Amino acid sequence: MKGVQHMKWWGWGLDGISFHHEDKPKFAPFVRERVGIDVTTPAARPPLRFEELDVPEPRLDDDLRSTLAGLVGEEYVTTDAMERVVHTFGKSVRDLIRIRRGELGRMPDVVVYPDSTDEVARVVDAVVAADAVLIPFGGGSNIAGSLEVPRGETRTVVSVDLGRMNKLLEIDEESGLALIQAGALGPHLEEQLQQRGWTIGHFPDSFSHSTLGGWIATRSSGMQSDRYGDIADITRGLTMAMPGKVLTLRPLPSSSTGPSVREMVLGSEGRLGVITEAWVNVKRVAEERVVLGYFFPDFATGLEALREIHKSDATPLVGRVSDERETQFSLATSKKSKGISKYVTKGLMAYLTRKGWDLQKLCLSFIGFEGSRSHVALQQRLVREIVTRHGGIVVGKGPGVLYDQKKFDTPYLRDFLLDRGAAADVSDTAAPWSKLKPLYDNVIAAAEGAFAEIGCQGYIMCHLSHNYHSGACLYFTFAVAHEGPGVIEKYDVVKRAIQSEFIRSGGTLSHHHGVGVEHSPWLAEDVSPAGQELIGGLLDFADPKHNLNPGKIVHTGTPGVSVLSEQ
Amino acid sequence: MKGVQHMKWWGWGLDGISFHHEDKPKFAPFVRERVGIDVTTPAARPPLRFEELDVPEPRLDDDLRSTLAGLVGEEYVTTDAMERVVHTFGKSVRDLIRIRRGELGRMPDVVVYPDSTDEVARVVDAVVAADAVLIPFGGGSNIAGSLEVPRGETRTVVSVDLGRMNKLLEIDEESGLALIQAGALGPHLEEQLQQRGWTIGHFPDSFSHSTLGGWIATRSSGMQSDRYGDIADITRGLTMAMPGKVLTLRPLPSSSTGPSVREMVLGSEGRLGVITEAWVNVKRVAEERVVLGYFFPDFATGLEALREIHKSDATPLVGRVSDERETQFSLATSKKSKGISKYVTKGLMAYLTRKGWDLQKLCLSFIGFEGSRSHVALQQRLVREIVTRHGGIVVGKGPGVLYDQKKFDTPYLRDFLLDRGAAADVSDTAAPWSKLKPLYDNVIAAAEGAFAEIGCQGYIMCHLSHNYHSGACLYFTFAVAHEGPGVIEKYDVVKRAIQSEFIRSGGTLSHHHGVGVEHSPWLAEDVSPAGQELIGGLLDFADPKHNLNPGKIVHTGTPGVSVLSEQ
Repeated sequence: MKGVQHMKWWGWGLDGISFHHEDKPKFAPFVRERVGIDVTTPAARPPLRFEELDVPEPRLDDDLRSTLAGLVGEEYVTTDAMERVVHTFGKSVRDLIRIRRGELGRMPDVVVYPDSTDEVARVVDAVVAADAVLIPFGGGSNIAGSLEVPRGETRTVVSVDLGRMNKLLEIDEESGLALIQAGALGPHLEEQLQQRGWTIGHFPDSFSHSTLGGWIATRSSGMQSDRYGDIADITRGLTMAMPGKVLTLRPLPSSSTGPSVREMVLGSEGRLGVITEAWVNVKRVAEERVVLGYFFPDFATGLEALREIHKSDATPLVGRVSDERETQFSLATSKKSKGISKYVTKGLMAYLTRKGWDLQKLCLSFIGFEGSRSHVALQQRLVREIVTRHGGIVVGKGPGVLYDQKKFDTPYLRDFLLDRGAAADVSDTAAPWSKLKPLYDNVIAAAEGAFAEIGCQGYIMCHLSHNYHSGACLYFTFAVAHEGPGVIEKYDVVKRAIQSEFIRSGGTLSHHHGVGVEHSPWLAEDVSPAGQELIGGLLDFADPKHNLNPGKIVHTGTPGVSVLSEQ
Repeated sequence: MKGVQHMKWWGWGLDGISFHHEDKPKFAPFVRERVGIDVTTPAARPPLRFEELDVPEPRLDDDLRSTLAGLVGEEYVTTDAMERVVHTFGKSVRDLIRIRRGELGRMPDVVVYPDSTDEVARVVDAVVAADAVLIPFGGGSNIAGSLEVPRGETRTVVSVDLGRMNKLLEIDEESGLALIQAGALGPHLEEQLQQRGWTIGHFPDSFSHSTLGGWIATRSSGMQSDRYGDIADITRGLTMAMPGKVLTLRPLPSSSTGPSVREMVLGSEGRLGVITEAWVNVKRVAEERVVLGYFFPDFATGLEALREIHKSDATPLVGRVSDERETQFSLATSKKSKGISKYVTKGLMAYLTRKGWDLQKLCLSFIGFEGSRSHVALQQRLVREIVTRHGGIVVGKGPGVLYDQKKFDTPYLRDFLLDRGAAADVSDTAAPWSKLKPLYDNVIAAAEGAFAEIGCQGYIMCHLSHNYHSGACLYFTFAVAHEGPGVIEKYDVVKRAIQSEFIRSGGTLSHHHGVGVEHSPWLAEDVSPAGQELIGGLLDFADPKHNLNPGKIVHTGTPGVSVLSEQ
């Protein structure tokens, strides 16, 4: 649609941007050794060409089409094949595998582009009146299956793309609140704020291709959540179009009105309605922002240092530490001349060896600071003291600059690997500090067990991100080599092993990717069966005929088995 | 009940503790001038004696009685008149007026004291099976009518007192999490934590007489919420007995599982079930804690300084500023030799007058700091710089020490005033910074208008407490003189004027006292009609026959008119 930016129909990001290994000399040997595939040969498994896709005819009767056209304008209602394909999936590796193969399944029949809360509200009412299905669409970056059309769905499926609703409407400068339309993509939203000296401070990995409405609908967290909070903290008010009514929550710093309606909308994944705009906390762009690199002798030490930092008076912007596996990956993806590996000098490594470090266990960490110059300087001192007391060392600003440059690039790697015979994705959790290291060990063991079970070489790595008083998020990335068919089934064995271990080890099903269909098998274990019933009861009350993004969040199949695997 | 501490049946706090004016020479003249009553004469309107109460026979059949006795033990099931009276009301001024007059209305028929989650779960099931009504009881300090039995209730009413469930069960020292039973009163809970070097940091005005379960059920906030968070932030996991099931939320620092079940329980006021225990954030008792006093030339300046402090890099423990009305009240309640007024020296006042201050507009402020010594010193410097830039002055530690000594005493004043012909209570709200001063002005005007309307002399005063990035809480205290009957109706006119102005001026119906029945007329305006429907739908789903604390939160009468006034 003109004026609305979408990602590649078959993969992550924009056309013309992709991952390259040629300028990263250690990458190919690393992947050959750890994942067992050769990435130096040309892509052996490219996606189908668009012309090869078998796009089914849309199921849309003239009545609904003309009603929708009457509400948003003829030019903003489309059944164009490319439009429908773009709105079919999110960007989980399962989605990528299916779309590359042309396995479209039951897909949206029509895409509409409303331009106001009022238009969205009318579209919602029209869809419900026609007993059709409505799936809200923001940036399409979801990896939990939250955009999935249930396979057996016989009703007309309407994808409501918020892409035209992308404006910063108002800043309350005194309060530090901004009213922004839900369809605004991260960069566009942030650009409008920064022009006036403000920032939302919310930078998820998907930032370039995800929207404010999507962040709220999936309870997203950004890399700087230690300072700015999760989207659940940042969102102070909102508007959501629901069948027959519009929910309006005015911006409030806090309230004792419970059960919290704001928290019902957060993470509702389109099942209660379509979020159209939100009041969010914004802050003045800070005088100074610094991200420093650190090394720890091993992951346990890194975790313990981060824990102590978040029990101290220090208030960092971001705190992150990679395990040795991810550290080795980072070094392997380093560019020849200007990558992170230039900080791993022979002299430094010799020094660390003399200190007694096992360099195979080296862990890379990033900790960032923001505020006035004096505040940033003080925070650096407080953190340095804790890091060095734990036997870590400060590497300096260079790695932090690289971190900032590369922070949104990782998702591109999945397409590159799929082209060459490996499936990669992420799973994240949060747990109390006391459970993090055992959880980490158990998840690594579970993944290794799953690799053995499916008979494929695989790799799993992890970093701690997002710190809280009582615990933190562990963010795992994993890849499995595969041959031909069965890759989704194999991927499922690994994903299921990891997710089940999250719950078993005291973590949540996902720290910041929502429930969708991908994580719904673990909902009852996460919030207990009584909690799942409460969620289900709320959703069913608001949408008794399941017209709104049906099948998400509450799972009705076999516990512990992905809905998608059963299809 | 043996081992369970209750407040006076007719008033606030413990027997033998009450407010005295004799040691506060400015108090009587102040009240005579501002509220129009003479407090120097003996109490002219004491409460009835207990023997004078007309306590109706309990409506409890033998089946339910023996079932309950079988579940919790014969000695923990009581229909004793005093027990039933103690469990009849909370402690709003409406409650106090009614109980002093012996207007008990429909009251609990039986009180049970379970001792475990399992016992509570069985009691819930038994009550629902008998189609009776269950009202959970913590400390009984609620001022929103959350303990009220609906007047027309014909079913047996069972008050479930959590008082025996008062133990600290476990501390996860690595994570900073404590598992505590819901019936633990503030001081007992804090004592058990402090013995091991920890604190929950949650100190609402009601701290001495309220419980963890009550705090969660009403979305409470403590005085130190700027550092420790509201109870909604502090509560990380919990257990709640529901009909036929037990909800268990494991302690998690954060999660993207939405809609948040944790946030459904927070503020649910017994309508979803009985909270039996919770995992809460706890922190190590800080090395240093300091509360300093400050003066501002007027309230607007004080608000602006607090706002700027919370936009800066400073992270205070508590930030509070009184308007000139409350400042004058504080000075009037100052003890002769050692009260706050000793800091209002002639020399200082002369200096401030020379600076151009209008001493009638003087505003007292408290800002507190906690952490390591160096952190506290730095915070004091950061805050002093902002305060003085706004023309405020640092008064020093003395007032802060007095603040800490007196902080839980204010509620006793209401009984003293009722004895002498004035009704006083509080109403609080939260709003964005940009709306605070207009809201304040509008609420003062609305209250003055209400005093005129009812033809009674009255007084209203305010302080800012609880600061957030985007706004703050304004906490109003008001008193009206009254003669004989009609006092509740007169009080209602004032309360309604204040609450309506909160909403009209962009605030929430209550920042930290919940909805109950007292605030439910404003629910639909607070969260919009669609939001009220979502809350109602959730509550009805979980409790279709309204066995659990019926009538709370969702109002079904005339908008803007208190349910209680209509009875």
